[in-house]
This record gives sequence, structure tokens and C-alpha cells, in this order.
Amino acid sequence: MSAAEPRRRGRPAGARSGDPATRERILAAARTEFSERGYDKASIRGIAKAAGVDAALVHHYFGPKDQVFEAAVELVFAPALDLPDVVARSAAGDMGERLTRFFLGIWENPVSRQPLLAVVRSAVANETAAAVFRRLVTVQLLRRVADELEGGDRELRAEMAAAQLVGVMMLRYVIRIEPIASADPEQVVAIAAPAVQRHLEPSRD
Amino acid sequence: MSAAEPRRRGRPAGARSGDPATRERILAAARTEFSERGYDKASIRGIAKAAGVDAALVHHYFGPKDQVFEAAVELVFAPALDLPDVVARSAAGDMGERLTRFFLGIWENPVSRQPLLAVVRSAVANETAAAVFRRLVTVQLLRRVADELEGGDRELRAEMAAAQLVGVMMLRYVIRIEPIASADPEQVVAIAAPAVQRHLEPSRD
Repeated sequence: MSAAEPRRRGRPAGARSGDPATRERILAAARTEFSERGYDKASIRGIAKAAGVDAALVHHYFGPKDQVFEAAVELVFAPALDLPDVVARSAAGDMGERLTRFFLGIWENPVSRQPLLAVVRSAVANETAAAVFRRLVTVQLLRRVADELEGGDRELRAEMAAAQLVGVMMLRYVIRIEPIASADPEQVVAIAAPAVQRHLEPSRD
Repeated sequence: MSAAEPRRRGRPAGARSGDPATRERILAAARTEFSERGYDKASIRGIAKAAGVDAALVHHYFGPKDQVFEAAVELVFAPALDLPDVVARSAAGDMGERLTRFFLGIWENPVSRQPLLAVVRSAVANETAAAVFRRLVTVQLLRRVADELEGGDRELRAEMAAAQLVGVMMLRYVIRIEPIASADPEQVVAIAAPAVQRHLEPSRD
């Protein structure tokens, strides 16, 4: 039975084997535990209890706490993973607007926003959670967007475009400063998208 | 003696009277306590102990925990309060660059960065701390920058310019994602300043 397979560090958490229904139950419990308590206060014991399994089984399937967190964050990030495809399908001239609309679409939807807010809070508060967040964002999003760009400094420009959207996310959804917190999403797109677009285009100097 | 003066809610925390040396000792202790423990875990008792005074005196001088936090954050924010003057002294065409340089200057300096990081962490984790942060940023920074702008949607445009810089702060100093985390500050200015400038200028539609 695959549950007896030794856990290997470095192997992607999502790829580990085990009974699929049990894995899924543990993951759902982990997502809830990390969302509600944050990385620092969440525990393997609490996740195991909520999933109705032994703590050793959580560790066996997913590894230590940071790897359980990574698997849970991958689940929360799932809606965002279409982003590189959205960018790849865009004409060069409307990449900024598509990216901005896609980003706002995820954050405007409470179902995707709530767990993402919890991930951001964990990453800001805790270095281990930040490392997981950093790796996922870099590998799954930033590098793949950078690959679609032309010209020099592609990774830095992709990140600067992301910075514009991350700032909107912080001021609109996390700290909620007016007037951006209550602005119509279309107005936010109208102001943010050209700035994002400018970063994505090669410098015209 | 002024220490007997009743505390009035709504009066700016920094304007309250009391023995100046004692006030200053309490404020320094509060700044350290909030920086090291975050808003949630910081306590009036801990601040009083570190300042060598009675907890009732902390409450008498500054009010409840959120108002002690506000006074401590005002202290941390002090370097940033020159920002509206920097903007007011700028020619319209280089406001974006001056603002970006000023912002990065504060965040590149570990002496101002460390306590600001602590304030950002508290504001992200706790709603009361977020409310204090929100009010200070709005009244002391965003509105005063918006007042210097021309054209429509001035507050929203000032906030969108701030969003670009807040995103840089998040990715470079808080989450520390490469390549922006290690990029030369001049390179960050070269890419961020034109985007900030664009938000500050009236729309050319």
C-alpha cells in the first residue's frame, strides 16, 4: 500500500501518494486550520483532529508543518495558476488589462479572497510561511509571466507589474484605505491596467 | 500638575500632556514592545514594566492600547511625515521620482525600516492596528499628496501611486522575492518612478 512509502523531502507535496480521499480530507482541514489560525498558531495535531486521522498520518502524507502549509497554499493558489495562460493568450497590447482583470477577479470573489488573505497574513507574519509563498509565487507566477515578455530585465519588470497589483491588493483588500477600498472595480482596472501594461512592455528609451 | 488632567478621547495622542521625560520613556517602551511582539501580543503591562512606571500611568497618559499604539506609530512614522513637503517642493514632472526616492530612502535605512516592518505586520494581522495605520496614512500622507495634484480622481490617483510603492515594499522588504529584493535601489527607482509619475499626472485621455 502506498501509505507505507517513505516520505521524501524535496518531492512536491502535491505529488505524494496515499489514499486520495484521506489526503483530500487532510488538505481541506489544513486549509481551514491555516486560514483560521494563521501559520504560527496552526498545528499538525489540530489538522489531524479536524480530519479525523492520527497526527502521524498527516506527517506521513505531507511531511512537517511547512510542507503541509505548502500543500494547503497550492490548493488556495489553484485559481491563480491560470494566470500564465491568460498572459500567454494575450496580445502584447492588452496583457496589462487582462492580467489586472484576472487578478481583481480572484480578489473580488470572497470564495477565493478569504483563503488568500489568510495566506498573505501568514507570509507577512512568519518567515517559514514567507519562504513557501515566495517559492510558489516565483516559480508558478512570476517566472512564467516573465517568459512571455520581450526585452531586457524581464523578471524585474514582471515583478514590478506584480508590485502594482500587490499594492492594490494591500490597500483595497487588506488595509482597506479609501477611496480605493470602495472604488468600482472598473475604475481600479482603468487606472491600474495601463501602469501594469507599461511594466510589461520593453522600455522605450 | 498636568498628570492629573483627565484623558480626553479623540484628542491626538501625541498632544496629551504629562511629564515630558516620563511620556518619552513610555513611548520608547511602547515602540519597542509593539515592534518586538506585534499589536496582538503587546500589553500595557509590558510597556509599563519596561518604562518603569505603573500601568495606570500609561493609560492615563495615552489611553487604551489602541491609542498607545497610535502614539507609537506616529513616532515610527515621523520620518515619513516630510513626504508631503517633498511632493509640494517638486516640479510636476519629477514628483514621481522624488516620491519614489524618498520612500526607498526610508525603507533602505534599517533604523527606519525595522519599526515600519513591525507596524505593517501589526496592521496586516490585526484590525485595530489596521484602523490606526489607515487613519494615519490617509490623513498624514495620502490626502496631503492628493492636495498637490491636478485633475480629477486625485485621491484615487495618489493612492494608486502609493500602491505601486507599497507593492515594491511588500515584494522587496517584507516577502523578499527575487530579483526585486536584491536589485540595486537605482534600478528600482528607474522602473518604479515613471509608473508613480504617471499616476500623479492628470489623465491624458
